[in-house]
This record gives sequence, structure tokens and C-alpha cells, in this order.
Amino acid sequence: MKITCQKADLNKGVNIVSKAVPTRTTKAILECILIDASSGEIKLTANDLELGIETIINGTIIERGIIALDANFLSKIVSKLPDTEITIETNSSFETFISYEKAGNKQRIIGKPGDDFPYIPVIQRNQAITLSQLTLKEIVRQTIFSVADNDTNKLMTGELLEIKDNKLKVVALDGHRVSIRNVELKNPTSDVKVIVPKKTLNEIIKIIDGGIDDEVRIYVTDSHIIFEFDKTTVVSRIIEGEFFKIEQMLSDNYETKIRINKKQLFEVIDRTTPYVHEGDKKPIIINVSDNIMSLSISSYNEYMTEDIDIDKEGKDIMIGFNPKFVMDALKVIDDEEINLYMLNSKTPCFIKDDNGSFIYIVLPVNFNNPGAN
Amino acid sequence: MKITCQKADLNKGVNIVSKAVPTRTTKAILECILIDASSGEIKLTANDLELGIETIINGTIIERGIIALDANFLSKIVSKLPDTEITIETNSSFETFISYEKAGNKQRIIGKPGDDFPYIPVIQRNQAITLSQLTLKEIVRQTIFSVADNDTNKLMTGELLEIKDNKLKVVALDGHRVSIRNVELKNPTSDVKVIVPKKTLNEIIKIIDGGIDDEVRIYVTDSHIIFEFDKTTVVSRIIEGEFFKIEQMLSDNYETKIRINKKQLFEVIDRTTPYVHEGDKKPIIINVSDNIMSLSISSYNEYMTEDIDIDKEGKDIMIGFNPKFVMDALKVIDDEEINLYMLNSKTPCFIKDDNGSFIYIVLPVNFNNPGAN
Repeated sequence: MKITCQKADLNKGVNIVSKAVPTRTTKAILECILIDASSGEIKLTANDLELGIETIINGTIIERGIIALDANFLSKIVSKLPDTEITIETNSSFETFISYEKAGNKQRIIGKPGDDFPYIPVIQRNQAITLSQLTLKEIVRQTIFSVADNDTNKLMTGELLEIKDNKLKVVALDGHRVSIRNVELKNPTSDVKVIVPKKTLNEIIKIIDGGIDDEVRIYVTDSHIIFEFDKTTVVSRIIEGEFFKIEQMLSDNYETKIRINKKQLFEVIDRTTPYVHEGDKKPIIINVSDNIMSLSISSYNEYMTEDIDIDKEGKDIMIGFNPKFVMDALKVIDDEEINLYMLNSKTPCFIKDDNGSFIYIVLPVNFNNPGAN
Repeated sequence: MKITCQKADLNKGVNIVSKAVPTRTTKAILECILIDASSGEIKLTANDLELGIETIINGTIIERGIIALDANFLSKIVSKLPDTEITIETNSSFETFISYEKAGNKQRIIGKPGDDFPYIPVIQRNQAITLSQLTLKEIVRQTIFSVADNDTNKLMTGELLEIKDNKLKVVALDGHRVSIRNVELKNPTSDVKVIVPKKTLNEIIKIIDGGIDDEVRIYVTDSHIIFEFDKTTVVSRIIEGEFFKIEQMLSDNYETKIRINKKQLFEVIDRTTPYVHEGDKKPIIINVSDNIMSLSISSYNEYMTEDIDIDKEGKDIMIGFNPKFVMDALKVIDDEEINLYMLNSKTPCFIKDDNGSFIYIVLPVNFNNPGAN
């Protein structure tokens, strides 16, 4: 194989597919990036068998061929290459020569044949779901923090992507909170329901760098989800099983509605975080009385309390929360003013906007002795 | 005690003195920052008994007093306070109330009496050494990387500051390399020779944020060095003992002088770093022949080699180096073109400029089988 390409293109391609290289594996070939220039294109591929990524880079094929190179080493080498044209040439012993600039400038690394490299599966494409790259990034960023950290329940380790009547709903939950984003699709799309692993979504939003005018095409099968954008294809296994029925949680019933400045609420809760000690996780206590929300937290002998002016409809309420869960939701909301809906101190608080584009549900925490300080 | 001050001033003061709070200590009082408003100023102090820092912050003293507050907790709280006027008030039980903005906004933390807090020692000031803050930062940054990481030899854990005939020389060495910076002092200053701990210098350059027109005054005693700047005083113990005689290393004898582009040399050596594997530390081999410097490194089956055009006076040479040591020096040199001086493959390489403002000495590494690749 002999190819030439620009360092920047090679580096970008290596970075993209590296996201699918497993950090630990017993199969050495999976630690490689496959450079396949056997047809008319230069295609880079990595595949950890759960997640596979391939991308086509610009360049010239002088002699067709295939080589598998250690991903970690290749990635380090390529990132440091000078910003110029790079030649990659292999011989029949899989010696790979990377050369540039001068006759004397050369790196030799030892590759592997690509024979046993697992190409990403060829999957029959059905109808595409089309989103802008920006929208996909946003809806993932605005929900993914709610996916469970541990994998005691497999279904909680991914996000639900559901399309019904041309509306896309994205749901992530971990037993303490639920995050939901709703988006109207522009193109008519058949109904879909699929659970996508957190890792896949995390890597996707790192790779896509396009904006509102750049598209992602998504295809779903019984076992896989495929994301196609620019010259990159990401194929991921899906999580099998029936996702949690969240409709029954989405009650419109409330006794207290609060309108509050988001930045102000965030900053006050952020100030409580030094009071959250490992092993003594005290909730933040929210006490709504007339048009004042008092927030307080106590830990050992220390406490803090602050008041925020609010608009309130309905009853006064006192309720406790894990400050992190409320902050996580506030961080990703773009609105300046937000609405909180609460029924009582034992039922979840809803943070949602009027047109239902987002719903954040946070379960309350029991608290004792609330008035002691 | 009752004081008011702006959040920004308090935060800056806390950050400055925090550098002298020990990360581990058996004396709980050392984990505190002392706020001393017992005289006409608000003075913050921290002291790990090796290094002590005090700084005066702007503010108003409403009631004189002293309180010691946990440094870590205070620092977290203060950094998150709103950007406004802050009131700190203590009572006779050392309860400390931090309040701001509204009557309802209050944090309570429990302090300690300042009675057993170790104030920084009062030291008789002799003649000051005066430097610009920028110069001090630069000469420390340009040498401190050569201070030994481990403390098997106590004398190698600090930098020599030596003044002779109104010239300041700063020296750091670790047995593999020596870094020297020479500066002409503007004001007449008596001769001084002192070894300053690396930690002290590291913290100093983090704290000083002034430029070429802002001064640092340095005082040296038999046991301490004092840095005074802005409203801050840093007092550090010095390292006792006789520093290494470096004069005998500073030979002007060379057989090969090379003039080379610094950026180009740095980038080529940087490209060799992926080839440096833990447990198989191969040197970079520099082979100078006529006006070409070939740099190569090999590791297992892999190698790289590159050529750089140079200006050379004297003999050809082949010599091996630890790439990190050469890169560390190149990183802090501001010149575009640099001169390397070498005698043979067993003696150190000198990187220095014509007016002697810096000298970097790097010991060579033995290499075997240099022409194998």
C-alpha cells in the first residue's frame, strides 16, 4: 500500500475512529486502526465490537492495499507530524514507513495484516431519521448526564430515542431523576423506539463538529443504530429490552408553581456544595413561603441559608433535594427564567418549559429536623 | 471581629495565602487561614512552618478581632460568593457568620481562636535585592524544571540564588543537567548566596502577577528568605549547606559548535517522544555530519530519523541524549536560533547565548549500536 495525504486530514481521521478503540481488550487486532486503501478510497476503521467507526479521508492512493496499525501509537505519532503532505507506504512484511518533507525524514512502525480485522457490519439501511448535527449534539448534551453511572440496570445505561408522530423524544434516567427532550422532526419519519448506549452518544457528540446546516442521518435496525455524517459512519449495538414507562410519571398535577431566575438559583445551589461532605450527604432544603424561596443546607456545625425572590402560584412548600441533581438540570437549560412544579415534599419536582421542549424530573430527598437552624 | 470587604479582594487574599497551607499536617491550626483584624489592617496569614505567607486586603474593620478558619473550606466558600460586599462577623464562641446581599443570606462556619497560630517570623530586614516581578517569574520559570524531583540530595531540591558584583545567578541541577540564568541587577546589592526550596519558588511565581514595572524586594538572612511585593510577604526557610561548585563544569572548551533553529529542533525531538517507552528508555541519537544534523531514535522494531539543516563549526560528532532533558531547555528559551557546544560524546552539551544570559548543560547518554538502523 502507498498513499499520500495531508497531516491535518490524517490526524482528524485517526482522532475520529480512535473513539471506537477499546481501552482494554484481549484481541490485539482490536487495538489497531485499519487503513483500507484497497478500493478507490482511503478508509480508516476502528471497532470494539460494540461500537464501530469508519471515516474516509482525502488523499491519493498510489498503490492499493490494507494495513492495521496500533491505534495508540499511530495517534501519538500522527498528532506530532509536521503540517504537510505525509506518505504512508507498507511492504509485504507489514513494515510501514511514514515519510514527509525530506528524503531523510522517516518513521518505521510495524503493522499487521488486516485479514482478521472486524469490519463494521454491513447493515441494510431503512428510512433515515434526519437531524441537524447541532440538534443531535444539543439533545444529547441536555440529557446524557442523567444516564446511570453504574450498570446494575442495563436499561439505565443508555438513552431512549423514541419517534412517534414525527416527534423525537430523548429520555435518560437513573432512578433519582429523569431528563426528557422533545424535538419536532422536519421530515416525515416512521415510528422508532431504541435504547442507545451512553458511550456511543458520548463519542458521537465529540466527533460531530457541524452546525445547524449539517445533517446526521440515523438508521435503526433490530440490533444496531447507525449514524452517518460528513464522511463518517458510526455503527453501535443497541441495548435490548423494554424501556421504562415514563408516561405514568408525567403528571400535570401540581400544587405549587414557581417562576425563578435560573442563574440565580444555580449560583445559590452552587454555594451550598462546599457543605456537602462525603459520608454526610445532607440535602438542600427549599422552603417556599409567599414570594420568597429560602434555600438552606447544614452540615455538622455549619450551615448556609439564602433567599431568592420568586413568582409563586399555589401553596407554600418545604422540600429537600440532592443539590447536584438540580444543578445538573439547570446547567443545560438555556432559558433565563424557569418554571418549577411541585405537588408535595414526597413527589418529584418538575422543571419544564411551556412548549414541552424539555422536562427535568428530580426526586426529592427526605430531610429531618428542617427548622433546627 | 467584624469586617467588610469586596468578594474579589477576599478571594484574591485567600488564594494567595492558601499556597502556604500544608496538604498534610498533624497540627490542625496549620490547616487554617488566620484573619487578623486586631490592628488597623485586615491581614490574612497561612504558615506550614517552612513557608509562611501573609497578605493585607482592602476592607473596613468595624470591630477588631482575630479568627482562624479552615483554609480548604474557606477557600471553597469564598470562591463561590457573589461579587459584592461581604461581611464577616465572629462571636465569642468563634462562630463566624459570612453574610451578603440580603438579610436572609448567611453562612455560618466554626472558627478557632488564633492564639496558637504560628505567625510568620519577624525578621530583621537587611539590604533589599530588588527585581521586577516579571524578571523573577522569568528566571524561575527558565530554571526550575531542572530541580531534582526526589529529595535524595537535599541540596538538589532547591535553586541557588547567588549575587556577586551586582550580578544575579540562578542555578538548578539534578545530576543530569544544569540550568543557569544570569541577570544584571540595576541597584547596587551586596553579595549573597542562598539555596531556596523549589516549593517556595513555585508558589511565588503563581502568586506574583505583576509586570516589568512592579517590584519584588528580597531579603536574605542566615535561615530565611523573604519576598515582599504588593501587599504580600512570603517568608521561607532556606536550604542549609554548600551548593555544588558549578564553575568547574563551565568549560569554554568545545570541538563542535552548531547553530540551529530552535523550533525545528524542538519539533523533531518532540516527534521522537512516542518512541520512548517506559522500561526501554532509548536515547535520541544526534549525528552531526557537515551541515546536516540527523536525529534518530529506535525502540523495539520501530524507529524514526529526521534531518535538520544547521550551521556547523568544528568537528562532526555523534552523541546521545534523553530527549526530555533537551526539550525542557528548548521550551524556556525565547531565542529563535540557538547555539549548541559539544566536545565529545562523553561530555555535556552546552546550550547558551552569546551574552551568557542563559546556560543549559545536558549530560549525554551512552548508546550502543548507533548505526544499526
